[in-house]
Amino acid sequence: MSGFGETDPRHHVVIIGCGFGGLFASRALKRAPVRVTLIDRKNHHLFQPLLYQVATGILSEGQIAPAIRDVLRNYPSFQVVLAEVEHIDVEAREVHADEFGRPLTIGYDSLIVAGGATTSYFGHDEFRAAACGMKSLDDALALRGQIFGAFELAEAEIDEQERRRLMTFVVVGGGPTGVEMAGQLKELSRRALRHNYRRINPHETRVVLVEGIDRLVSTMGPRLSRLTARDLTRMGVEIHLGAMVTHLDDRGVEITTKDGGTQLIPAATKVWAAGTRASGLGAHLAEAAGAETDKVGRVLVRPDCSVPGHPEIFVVGDLMALDDLPGVAEVAMQSGAHAAHTIVRRLEGKPSRPFRYRDLGTLAVISRFRAVAKIGPLRVGGFMGWLLWLVVHVTFLTGFKNRFGALTRWAVSFIGRGRYERALTGRWVAGSKRTKKSA
Amino acid sequence: MSGFGETDPRHHVVIIGCGFGGLFASRALKRAPVRVTLIDRKNHHLFQPLLYQVATGILSEGQIAPAIRDVLRNYPSFQVVLAEVEHIDVEAREVHADEFGRPLTIGYDSLIVAGGATTSYFGHDEFRAAACGMKSLDDALALRGQIFGAFELAEAEIDEQERRRLMTFVVVGGGPTGVEMAGQLKELSRRALRHNYRRINPHETRVVLVEGIDRLVSTMGPRLSRLTARDLTRMGVEIHLGAMVTHLDDRGVEITTKDGGTQLIPAATKVWAAGTRASGLGAHLAEAAGAETDKVGRVLVRPDCSVPGHPEIFVVGDLMALDDLPGVAEVAMQSGAHAAHTIVRRLEGKPSRPFRYRDLGTLAVISRFRAVAKIGPLRVGGFMGWLLWLVVHVTFLTGFKNRFGALTRWAVSFIGRGRYERALTGRWVAGSKRTKKSA
Repeated sequence: MSGFGETDPRHHVVIIGCGFGGLFASRALKRAPVRVTLIDRKNHHLFQPLLYQVATGILSEGQIAPAIRDVLRNYPSFQVVLAEVEHIDVEAREVHADEFGRPLTIGYDSLIVAGGATTSYFGHDEFRAAACGMKSLDDALALRGQIFGAFELAEAEIDEQERRRLMTFVVVGGGPTGVEMAGQLKELSRRALRHNYRRINPHETRVVLVEGIDRLVSTMGPRLSRLTARDLTRMGVEIHLGAMVTHLDDRGVEITTKDGGTQLIPAATKVWAAGTRASGLGAHLAEAAGAETDKVGRVLVRPDCSVPGHPEIFVVGDLMALDDLPGVAEVAMQSGAHAAHTIVRRLEGKPSRPFRYRDLGTLAVISRFRAVAKIGPLRVGGFMGWLLWLVVHVTFLTGFKNRFGALTRWAVSFIGRGRYERALTGRWVAGSKRTKKSA
Repeated sequence: MSGFGETDPRHHVVIIGCGFGGLFASRALKRAPVRVTLIDRKNHHLFQPLLYQVATGILSEGQIAPAIRDVLRNYPSFQVVLAEVEHIDVEAREVHADEFGRPLTIGYDSLIVAGGATTSYFGHDEFRAAACGMKSLDDALALRGQIFGAFELAEAEIDEQERRRLMTFVVVGGGPTGVEMAGQLKELSRRALRHNYRRINPHETRVVLVEGIDRLVSTMGPRLSRLTARDLTRMGVEIHLGAMVTHLDDRGVEITTKDGGTQLIPAATKVWAAGTRASGLGAHLAEAAGAETDKVGRVLVRPDCSVPGHPEIFVVGDLMALDDLPGVAEVAMQSGAHAAHTIVRRLEGKPSRPFRYRDLGTLAVISRFRAVAKIGPLRVGGFMGWLLWLVVHVTFLTGFKNRFGALTRWAVSFIGRGRYERALTGRWVAGSKRTKKSA
């Protein structure tokens, strides 16, 4: 594989990662006079903002995770390599990777590192076994099994207390992901499972949202924070603000409030939507290139997103530390595109420009037909917020068929009450056994 | 759980299994003066005839596998129990099951056993590890990972011979399932993967269909068998008739023809669509009730589908041996409904009637817009056959949202060229590692 395309005289751009950063860098390079190798260890791009809808049975995996090869099929100067990057040799300008157990070396002229982020348990890695993150398709599928499986176990449960535990869902983290997850869990139990059970009443499902600071969706400003808390409370979500998770295991969650009071919440299903940290690639690159990382492992970059001393290496998206920009999809998209444009400008002999982030806004769905949205100076909630959410998500979903497919699913789930994806497969059986053993 | 509903004075019908047999028995009992307990070890009904479309990335799991509880949500006298049946005590009229590790006993007045069938490897159980069956959602998901994963491994492969092996797919069994699977694999490689790869040419994919007798879709009559073979051959499917699989492992398949000639086909992906045998419940019930089983483990029943000596126990669908009826969805649907009607007739003091199977036909899709169909006296192929296939499948898919969802997916896949479900998840990584180790 290493020899592929080496005779091609064009400037060779290697992109690591096909999340939003890598994808938007690719789009910006589609017609550029370069050849591109895109390396990812997954075969799919992931539309992360809708991961919670896969977890709660609205969307299928494929609808938010198109195959990278298919997205880039009409990019003739691109090749996609499925491999795990192990080492970046910044002196030799080579990426070393593992391609299905075989070592692979790819030389580059320019490198865009868009390795993304993983779930951070804030130093409590022991929480990982009991609280699923919300970063990958595997996370969402595991959660889907846990959620629908919990209702099955509850229906079969004789012990009243254990049944309540099975019907309790704790979401840790009050950002958009946590808010959307908590809202959907309530929607699911109130509407989608109606008349499905004979012994349990899904309306009695307890959904708890835990946030360390004293506001939900804090980036949206105080008014939308209040609106979000009010809407969720009306739906029956139990909100704990200014509360830290001090213990978490299979049985449940212990939270401690600022005044030192602790509360035990027995809960079978825990969703960890609280923290992210940069993928290990950040620390590796920083060491290799003599750069610095911030406290969540992101690489400190120059204003044009390049690594100090290595103008040919760019770090974008969740792996990039620049101007305190948040780890959101929009930053990844724009910084990915910026890195690509900078490469093209240099090839044209033009100087690089600093990256200017245009904050297009933040959105979070609370229930069907209700959302909060901050778009530029605009801050709206309720139905208008939801309409904005709909327009933005349809626009940004990759590919026509995913847009169309998601729209039909949303019609089924929001106007109707059904959920397509409730089938429990082998994955779940294993999970349920683990739950039973520890119970 | 065992005490649930025991105070209800109505006749209690227990149905084991919610495949086509159990589902159609349920429908027939919806308004009957009985209470019903439906036991299944899966949480979903499965529309098996479309399993190959889940395996080849057209449909999502949920689209062919609606949650049983949701299908029966408006059946107020029904309860659904997720449990594995372990023993039937025909004297005490009790079903003993394992419900998430807890023993569960359910008494019955009438029992409908619709336990279905599993894959039979014709005494070669060692084939199971290397050749996936086509009976469950887990089978389809495992195959989906193998199929799309094989192209990824091929793209990364340096060795020409190994690459050809990775791009070879052997389908064992020339019934409708095998024919549809072989046709779809060709469609997939010719259309859906177009422009996706840079090193391999998916057009070079080799699809081999192996059938033990000398005709494909033999139940459809000689003309449609010939038509099927002609259409598949034109698409590039390599057909071996009158050939037995004499060896099969991770590396490939050895087939032996009637004249004793053997041929080795190196192939990474093997699909076993050849044989089925009754679930173990058949043998167990036969022993418990003193009934007989045929050579594939089905219970020999009386003309009204009841077990000899036990008029209160019915066996339907793939578990039932009666008049040499084939193990197809239509037989399961009609015999399930017949058993239910017989129970109601008896409660009304009427005698039972013998089961009369109305053969509504058989269908098999060959490529987009081409199918063969035998409907009553009608035998059509080509586009007309495909139209018939479309109408029948849309009609029989359970629930409006699944009909609508499948139609939009078919539009995307057949008119367009895309496949929604190509995301490789954790399931596949494990599979690919196994493949690599043994390679």
